[in-house]
Amino acid sequence: MTGNSTTPWDELPIRDELRGKSPYGAPQLDVPVRLNTNENPYPLPEPLVARIAERVAEAARHLNRYPDRDAVELRTELAHYLSRSTGHPVGPAQVWAANGSNEVLQQLLQAFGGPGRTAIGFEPSYSMHALIARGTGTGWISGPRRADFTIDVDAARAAIAEKRPEVVFVTSPNNPTGTAVEAEAVLALYEAAQAARPEGGGAMVVVDEAYGEFSHRPSLLPLIQGRRNLVISRTMSKAFGAAGLRLGYLAADPAVVDAVQLVRLPYHLSAVTQATALAALEHTDTLLGYVEQLKSERDRLVTELRAMGVEVTDSDANFVQFGRFEDSHRAWQGLLDRGVLVRDNGVPGWLRVTAGTPEENDAFLDAVRELIKESTT
Amino acid sequence: MTGNSTTPWDELPIRDELRGKSPYGAPQLDVPVRLNTNENPYPLPEPLVARIAERVAEAARHLNRYPDRDAVELRTELAHYLSRSTGHPVGPAQVWAANGSNEVLQQLLQAFGGPGRTAIGFEPSYSMHALIARGTGTGWISGPRRADFTIDVDAARAAIAEKRPEVVFVTSPNNPTGTAVEAEAVLALYEAAQAARPEGGGAMVVVDEAYGEFSHRPSLLPLIQGRRNLVISRTMSKAFGAAGLRLGYLAADPAVVDAVQLVRLPYHLSAVTQATALAALEHTDTLLGYVEQLKSERDRLVTELRAMGVEVTDSDANFVQFGRFEDSHRAWQGLLDRGVLVRDNGVPGWLRVTAGTPEENDAFLDAVRELIKESTT
Repeated sequence: MTGNSTTPWDELPIRDELRGKSPYGAPQLDVPVRLNTNENPYPLPEPLVARIAERVAEAARHLNRYPDRDAVELRTELAHYLSRSTGHPVGPAQVWAANGSNEVLQQLLQAFGGPGRTAIGFEPSYSMHALIARGTGTGWISGPRRADFTIDVDAARAAIAEKRPEVVFVTSPNNPTGTAVEAEAVLALYEAAQAARPEGGGAMVVVDEAYGEFSHRPSLLPLIQGRRNLVISRTMSKAFGAAGLRLGYLAADPAVVDAVQLVRLPYHLSAVTQATALAALEHTDTLLGYVEQLKSERDRLVTELRAMGVEVTDSDANFVQFGRFEDSHRAWQGLLDRGVLVRDNGVPGWLRVTAGTPEENDAFLDAVRELIKESTT
Repeated sequence: MTGNSTTPWDELPIRDELRGKSPYGAPQLDVPVRLNTNENPYPLPEPLVARIAERVAEAARHLNRYPDRDAVELRTELAHYLSRSTGHPVGPAQVWAANGSNEVLQQLLQAFGGPGRTAIGFEPSYSMHALIARGTGTGWISGPRRADFTIDVDAARAAIAEKRPEVVFVTSPNNPTGTAVEAEAVLALYEAAQAARPEGGGAMVVVDEAYGEFSHRPSLLPLIQGRRNLVISRTMSKAFGAAGLRLGYLAADPAVVDAVQLVRLPYHLSAVTQATALAALEHTDTLLGYVEQLKSERDRLVTELRAMGVEVTDSDANFVQFGRFEDSHRAWQGLLDRGVLVRDNGVPGWLRVTAGTPEENDAFLDAVRELIKESTT
């Protein structure tokens, strides 16, 4: 017995770096307005629900058999979607899918990171990057951002040149700040990463575009052309309103897709997941219609918050970072007391709110107004 | 460019231990009788297919939200099933579920294995144990078996005492040999593993019972009582006829369940997977009826093969290891030429056949008869 900790797993032979840690995850609280996990507020339309039931029933008739290990039909449809939405032609051999983009990123780190290697991210950013690095034994390097949360390309290049990471994460739009990264910046970081590792095949640059569809700018996907070590990661959780489906995917050179197949668990993607994702892809146009509504609501949040005198980081995502609070946890609690759950991502002074339905956003804005009034009286 | 390999990923900065490797997976060939991947040959009954469609439609109405991160309802029903089928009471806090038992095992190795640690298995055994060890940076130790494929407990204890692994895998019934392990042997290995690592919480012993429902013997699950470091791993792929679902689970001390939550990817188990598994668990009795048919077909395969003079390893699983062939690959090809696909697991002299429907098994037995006739004339 170690006797110096109260965690129930502490007496087990767990890895030292896990001792004292807590499982990742936002508090799941029962609150009227939940704007804390960047979910899409619009339920899937009923015709799509019916189509999912139909395709899953079809799949269930063969459920005694293993699923298509290579998910060829799904990767083909994802490739169609990417080609159509970005204007850059992509084929199924350039696409890979897994249980959430978290699993995609985990597979990438198992293949290209891992023990004795490092990955860099420019923080604050999606905190799972560092956690998946830890889970795969990859050393984590916290790279810099400017005070306005944009990436300082010169500083980032210097960090890459000094640390020589095998994997570079670029999140665009960035979570939790909402900041998009320009193509020129990605290219500069890509060149720096290759220059830092002239031997052994260079370094991988993973552009996490989980919120790509909500951006004012075009996707960075066309950059994969001619760049073997550049990977674009995507998800159906946000734009497709399917967080419950857990379907993430990547687009890259076919060699990258082959490489992750060396580390993926065989048959990792269930037949019901594949069937549900295929049904959702049949309804792409409807679902992207919701994205347009959410973009305009996101822009409204930015405008109205700024009109109240609240600071807001420019957002290209389906959420908005706002502040600055002397005590952001207290502000978080103040909003929760008014029935609105937002996210405290641990960025000092800032909170993050997901763009919800117009009614949810109104409730949020009202709660912020009350909070301001309270603090100034 | 390395220039000495033709793999498409060789020019990428992949980990050295992956160079020259191939993705895991049996050849997926289009053959009339496929008895190579230990699938259950019985499709799910139509009432269950309908119930799956119903429960998935329900889940799809909330698919824009993240799934229950802790899968509480599913773990509760799995706990009921385990309690009922083994007679040993288990609660949801002792159960954890993931995308196939492969992911369960991967999470266990991320928490208890990993860089600088080792795991042992007694080979030949389920080859994914070694592959998941590699994928998690865990050193792999190949422990011994007797020529009859049972575990030599003294030799196994000696290997554990010498190598001091943090994780010990015991597969019962063993794949690909079909061999069950007695409770006394598991206890002896458990004690040896703890004795070898008196500091740091001992060692984890993972009993892989993927084929547990097909055994002549009772489950080893009751052994978890009072043994904090013992884990039983299970799957719905085989007994529940749901290989396409990818639902694996474990039963252990609640502290183990807490520990894997430190490394699991958040929301790893999709809402559609949870809904489908819950529907299947409603139909447990029907599905276990198929298991009884398969056990009797398995026993028939053993009897008839032996009557032909073919050597067969005692089997407690839904498959049978048979031999011995001077050239097992040639025998595999001879059966394939007759329209029957079995598995060459790389055990010299032996092949493995899954118990199929009575018709499939007849076709297999006829093909073996022809093969014998051909080789003796």
